[in-house]
Amino acid sequence: MASPTRFDVVGIGNAIVDVLARTDDDFLVAQALAKGSMRLIDELEADRLYGMMGSSVEASGGSAANTIAGIAGFGGKAAFLGRVRDDGLGRIFSHDIRALGIHYPTSPAVAGAGTARCLILVTPDGERTMNTYLGAAQELTPDDMDEATIASAGCTYLEGYLWDPPQAKEAFLRAARIAHANGRQVALSLSDSFCVDRYRAEFLNLMREGIVDIVFANSHEVRALYETADLETALGAVARDVPHAIVTKSEDGVSVLKDGQRHDAPAWPVDDVLDLTGAGDLFAAGYLFGIARGGDIRKAARLGAFAAAQVIGQFGARPQASLAQLAEAEGLLPL
Amino acid sequence: MASPTRFDVVGIGNAIVDVLARTDDDFLVAQALAKGSMRLIDELEADRLYGMMGSSVEASGGSAANTIAGIAGFGGKAAFLGRVRDDGLGRIFSHDIRALGIHYPTSPAVAGAGTARCLILVTPDGERTMNTYLGAAQELTPDDMDEATIASAGCTYLEGYLWDPPQAKEAFLRAARIAHANGRQVALSLSDSFCVDRYRAEFLNLMREGIVDIVFANSHEVRALYETADLETALGAVARDVPHAIVTKSEDGVSVLKDGQRHDAPAWPVDDVLDLTGAGDLFAAGYLFGIARGGDIRKAARLGAFAAAQVIGQFGARPQASLAQLAEAEGLLPL
Repeated sequence: MASPTRFDVVGIGNAIVDVLARTDDDFLVAQALAKGSMRLIDELEADRLYGMMGSSVEASGGSAANTIAGIAGFGGKAAFLGRVRDDGLGRIFSHDIRALGIHYPTSPAVAGAGTARCLILVTPDGERTMNTYLGAAQELTPDDMDEATIASAGCTYLEGYLWDPPQAKEAFLRAARIAHANGRQVALSLSDSFCVDRYRAEFLNLMREGIVDIVFANSHEVRALYETADLETALGAVARDVPHAIVTKSEDGVSVLKDGQRHDAPAWPVDDVLDLTGAGDLFAAGYLFGIARGGDIRKAARLGAFAAAQVIGQFGARPQASLAQLAEAEGLLPL
Repeated sequence: MASPTRFDVVGIGNAIVDVLARTDDDFLVAQALAKGSMRLIDELEADRLYGMMGSSVEASGGSAANTIAGIAGFGGKAAFLGRVRDDGLGRIFSHDIRALGIHYPTSPAVAGAGTARCLILVTPDGERTMNTYLGAAQELTPDDMDEATIASAGCTYLEGYLWDPPQAKEAFLRAARIAHANGRQVALSLSDSFCVDRYRAEFLNLMREGIVDIVFANSHEVRALYETADLETALGAVARDVPHAIVTKSEDGVSVLKDGQRHDAPAWPVDDVLDLTGAGDLFAAGYLFGIARGGDIRKAARLGAFAAAQVIGQFGARPQASLAQLAEAEGLLPL
């Protein structure tokens, strides 16, 4: 049996500062950007696009980092591994994650590319189109996989975007080995459907070889993974490939497939969809926190839906208020 | 008669990036901070306080700059004068103001202190407590008062906070001289009641000597100016000292005192007061835009109240959506 945990979850991902601006569909068309996608850009393109963008707001982001921030917001014990540069944006990222009480042992790079940033264009429908300059986040290596942290976290949560920086992939695999050697679970978020297109075979391999135990995906991603337009076909396939899959379906809620069982839960009502940035990340936060604290998949799914709703109704990827207090007010906590 | 204007308004003020974090009243008490105030801090204290603050959001700010951003958001032609350093925060400030179509000719400082930042602590009641490190904003000098810009702006709008950086005061006076020499109006915002306490005699002198034609104040500031607890007494006094005074009274609306006339207008309804940061700045934006486009004081006051409501219901000091579109949807524009 595994020893007691020090952390509910350790997240490993790209350490990114978001630069959010409102825009319209015409701008996306003129810039030939695919709405809802994440594309990688170099520094030159980052500077060019930033110059074209409207007035912005800066806030710490990164998919797995957002999830970890959400877990901390629920009162969970959390850690994060990911690399920034020792520059202005890097100080912002480090400050924000530590301000939430998150253990963040990765040392900043002292040379090389600047801290990663994601230029996020938010259209009036709330969709976000992401343009990521990975910069220093690419410097994450297997040596950064802090063994003590991973060994003492109930779950190691990895973002699919880690397949983009070349060395991070090896770091991912090392983290999974440490987690399993210590009797812990390994979770993977598929990140986005374009990411799935880039790494389909590798992601399927991770699932089929048991390197990951839990998969988070949305309906676009799981269909992209199995190259099918039919969601039910994809759900059947993912249930065969991994023991625990959580597939979010926007306003249609979520389907949880675990050990041959299926549970469908509704979305949490949202008055105004302002910005979908962080919705999937926060669903994972609520779900993982619920599971970590002994909740069943129904309670975990409700916490996930609740957390997602809190960021959809605001601008930016991390909740601006205490998730724990909000969830208590709704009677969702204590579990 | 004055020649045609190129700009509706030129704003002159401290060029600041806001660092916003939610907090509770206990934190303010523990840090001995006066709720709702703006205090000046040095770089050491800025670093110390930032280390104690929660997870933050960064966004361009500065009182007069927010007003100018609001005027541009209404579709007005606007300019801004204020100094940043050529650092990361300075690039953010410059990008954001130019992204709104605002003429911003002040060159960044290439040495010395970094770009000004304001650590804003937002309590659950929406009040913001501001801690400003002026940094490069203090480098604004009379030479930066771009004569062509000021001469061609219908109104020169100055923030009272300019009385804090030593040279900015002289810059202010030079700007007022240029404006009046070209038949333009000069407006002053009293900024906050603590600022009024610091510079009461000088502000009264500006008004009584006709160096400013229009004064924006809230009920706290105008009472601080005349050292009276009675608002009506203060309103009577300000009406004698300046030809055009606009006094905002939070949920009680606004009193406009112009050339011996008085007009009282209600506040715009707000469902949820999230964050008062920028409310006064945006009131001034709507009001000045309304006047510049030929509206009477009633229409201007309505636009001001509307603009203030748009930022009170969100986190941060500048509206995240187009004020022009929102105001058209409400039937407030065209005038």
